[in-house]
Amino acid sequence: MGCRALLLLPLLSLGAATTIRSGLKTLGSLRLPTNPTSDPAVAHNYSVLYFQQKVDHFGFSDTRTFKQRYLIADQHWRTNGGSILLYTGNEGDITWFCNNTGFMWEVAEELKAMLVFAEHRYYGESLPFGEDSFKDSQHLNFLTSEQALADFAELIRHLRRTIPGAGNQPVIAIGGSYGGMLAAWFRMKYPHSVVGALAASAPIWQFEDLVPCGIFMKIVTEDFRKSGPHCAESIRRSWGAINRLSSTGGGLQWLTKALHLCSPLASEDISYLKEWISETWLNLAMVDYPYEANFLQPLPAWPIKVVCQYLKNPNVSDTVLLQNIFQALNIYYNYSGQAQCLNISQTATSSLGSLGWSYQSCTEMVMPFCANGVDDMFETYQWDLEKFSDDCFSQWGVKPRPHWITTLYGGKNISSHSNIIFSNGDLDPWSGGGVTKDITDTLVAINIPGGAHHLDLRASTAFDPSTVLLSRSLEVKHMKKWIADFYQNARRQS
Amino acid sequence: MGCRALLLLPLLSLGAATTIRSGLKTLGSLRLPTNPTSDPAVAHNYSVLYFQQKVDHFGFSDTRTFKQRYLIADQHWRTNGGSILLYTGNEGDITWFCNNTGFMWEVAEELKAMLVFAEHRYYGESLPFGEDSFKDSQHLNFLTSEQALADFAELIRHLRRTIPGAGNQPVIAIGGSYGGMLAAWFRMKYPHSVVGALAASAPIWQFEDLVPCGIFMKIVTEDFRKSGPHCAESIRRSWGAINRLSSTGGGLQWLTKALHLCSPLASEDISYLKEWISETWLNLAMVDYPYEANFLQPLPAWPIKVVCQYLKNPNVSDTVLLQNIFQALNIYYNYSGQAQCLNISQTATSSLGSLGWSYQSCTEMVMPFCANGVDDMFETYQWDLEKFSDDCFSQWGVKPRPHWITTLYGGKNISSHSNIIFSNGDLDPWSGGGVTKDITDTLVAINIPGGAHHLDLRASTAFDPSTVLLSRSLEVKHMKKWIADFYQNARRQS
Repeated sequence: MGCRALLLLPLLSLGAATTIRSGLKTLGSLRLPTNPTSDPAVAHNYSVLYFQQKVDHFGFSDTRTFKQRYLIADQHWRTNGGSILLYTGNEGDITWFCNNTGFMWEVAEELKAMLVFAEHRYYGESLPFGEDSFKDSQHLNFLTSEQALADFAELIRHLRRTIPGAGNQPVIAIGGSYGGMLAAWFRMKYPHSVVGALAASAPIWQFEDLVPCGIFMKIVTEDFRKSGPHCAESIRRSWGAINRLSSTGGGLQWLTKALHLCSPLASEDISYLKEWISETWLNLAMVDYPYEANFLQPLPAWPIKVVCQYLKNPNVSDTVLLQNIFQALNIYYNYSGQAQCLNISQTATSSLGSLGWSYQSCTEMVMPFCANGVDDMFETYQWDLEKFSDDCFSQWGVKPRPHWITTLYGGKNISSHSNIIFSNGDLDPWSGGGVTKDITDTLVAINIPGGAHHLDLRASTAFDPSTVLLSRSLEVKHMKKWIADFYQNARRQS
Repeated sequence: MGCRALLLLPLLSLGAATTIRSGLKTLGSLRLPTNPTSDPAVAHNYSVLYFQQKVDHFGFSDTRTFKQRYLIADQHWRTNGGSILLYTGNEGDITWFCNNTGFMWEVAEELKAMLVFAEHRYYGESLPFGEDSFKDSQHLNFLTSEQALADFAELIRHLRRTIPGAGNQPVIAIGGSYGGMLAAWFRMKYPHSVVGALAASAPIWQFEDLVPCGIFMKIVTEDFRKSGPHCAESIRRSWGAINRLSSTGGGLQWLTKALHLCSPLASEDISYLKEWISETWLNLAMVDYPYEANFLQPLPAWPIKVVCQYLKNPNVSDTVLLQNIFQALNIYYNYSGQAQCLNISQTATSSLGSLGWSYQSCTEMVMPFCANGVDDMFETYQWDLEKFSDDCFSQWGVKPRPHWITTLYGGKNISSHSNIIFSNGDLDPWSGGGVTKDITDTLVAINIPGGAHHLDLRASTAFDPSTVLLSRSLEVKHMKKWIADFYQNARRQS
């Protein structure tokens, strides 16, 4: 696991992995394509615009600015009674979020909404210092969630003042994953800027000891357990099988061949191999969508079910078990049938988004993860903040402040806020750190049985389970109420 | 007026003046004692403590820390059902606020409250870089309201974790003037840290165009108008009289003598003289208390009434009018009868508090002020942001961002917040920028007829008008409700 998962894809890279993997040394390695394909269901026409932002909103001595990219689509926007939906961009190229958030495009007409997708600083084209942005901790100093929220607030102010008709319209923040955390936090910190927030798959409680550190791995395991008989058990047993087989030179050769690896395994690669396999299971849990999709990789519908067809029998010899594991991995890495071999050490092309998230998880976004091999199907892994901190310091020259996010955003004590929808799919391991129970009448949880990582934000398909259809319609209902309340208050005041 | 008023005294220096005075060139001059005396009505026993704060809460590359001073008084604190009252320190030495906020001491027993007075960074002893703190814009870069609020949040977290019994108690933020703004903003931005806020005389709307720029001077004028017949009119006419008299050498000599000035007036001193006189009227409006007090200066009860006894007749010659003005000024500057002469150019001992506020008013706390001589008794003064900005740049090497405070804290759009009391006295010119009408059931305004600058926070006296007694009891009622709600929620959750 480790920072590879973190490097996979901005949307899914919430960083679970940094903590499981032993340190940051492999940062930069990447096996999977970093250019995710778009959601093909919706045709997206938007304008690309740039807004001059202060590099540092919270001080006055640094007067440097940079250009924040944002996208606007106003085909369905109406100045009379309309609204503005702001995607609070997360750790990646904003065009990708724009193309993968079909939900916003689909509700635009009903809400007479202008769609705005705001890129997060240090990602995509919104680099404060161009190619020097990741040079050192000095240049990275302005990569924080607070600065990102301030960017959003300034952008909204700009749009309201410059777009005729936008000044008196309600804005709703929408985001998924880290973007969902930002949407929720934006409503909490800038409730004058947005009337509400839809925070999809937003693990705002995956910090400190707010949730058990093992909950993520437990949910991943549960997904496999439910997707086929003995599937999780087969995976649990595979680690020992790998350990035994890799203890001899012949075993390493055999493993190389059985797993169709591109390069021969050495004994020092084994922990890496196991992390690579673990990552695969994590990723599958996140993208266990009900339809064929090309998100991280081309995958069949309900990919875990397909994988688990090969993992029905844990009571086999080590070699048979590992042959089965290969078949399972091959679904993930070679569904298209094009791969000649599986490459566990391929170095990826540089992905700024991944670099940025690695830094963020070493500063503010410190998410403790662990595994015990009993409640989950993974090898034991203990959360070691001290080691994590040391690794961060080696990597970035900074040390994390694990308590800062809860001090800043309130941890579980958020009941005084209002108008936030927290949606979570129960298949999504990130739901473990999410808000899955109503907190108040206006801080509501929407749970999506059978849903993976923010399935609700994806464009609708014929294969969507009824649960996600219901969730989306509930979300629209809440948003319509926020908009109606806004206009009612405006009328009352005028 | 100008930055002198701003230099007078932290509590009263909210900076009106920076904007009226032509620029910042006289920064550093000060005529009045900078060591205000304490409120004698309450004996104050407290411990002095220090907490290690990050210089920069909003970045990770700067790891420097400093010691924030705070005071604790726990004589009346009870671990069972108690509370914590946090004074959100403003622009000055925290011991002074501690000694001048008798209200907190008086309600401590009833609320079983621990009193905590937290010093604002860059004031008193809480200097991030010691004597270099005001050296240049680099060193001043961390002097913002956001950093101060983060200090408060970290301090509360620290107290809750380290003082046995404090962890599960409700905290209420209390402050006056800028401290009141901070109390309100703290509840808005960190509602998980405090269950409510008492924001006394907090002009949170004295920004941009949220209130008319002339409202401050209008209220000052109204105070004088109500305090004696023709009083405001006499002052209004005095400016012309000064202009005429000062147009000749003999007139200047006469003025020097008539006003009992310590140094002879030159013609280039005249605008300075008029500002100095204006400041005096502003200060009197702020401290127009119903009892003899030694706040800025030793003053009689209802000092404006006393002053106005000398200003009953505007229809006199220029010389008689100026002789009357002298009598009025002499009340303010020489009530004790000790002064040999009045000194308009005395340079004050360095006051860090004043330096800090000057910087803050040149960055975030940009408060537009103006006068038109019709709705008020002052000479015409137009708010000139460009000039103000240039002066700030000369003085501090920074330029103000006038819209930032409203972008950050919401301006008038704050109805989604809760549990804030905004109290204002109608004599206080700062009430013009304050919240004087209820916004919601839990964002309430308490108006104090006959009250000057946060009279409600001062220790009670036999001379308090019934209005302030009622206000204080209302404030306690609200605080008790917040505390009761907190414990009720805690019981429900346990």
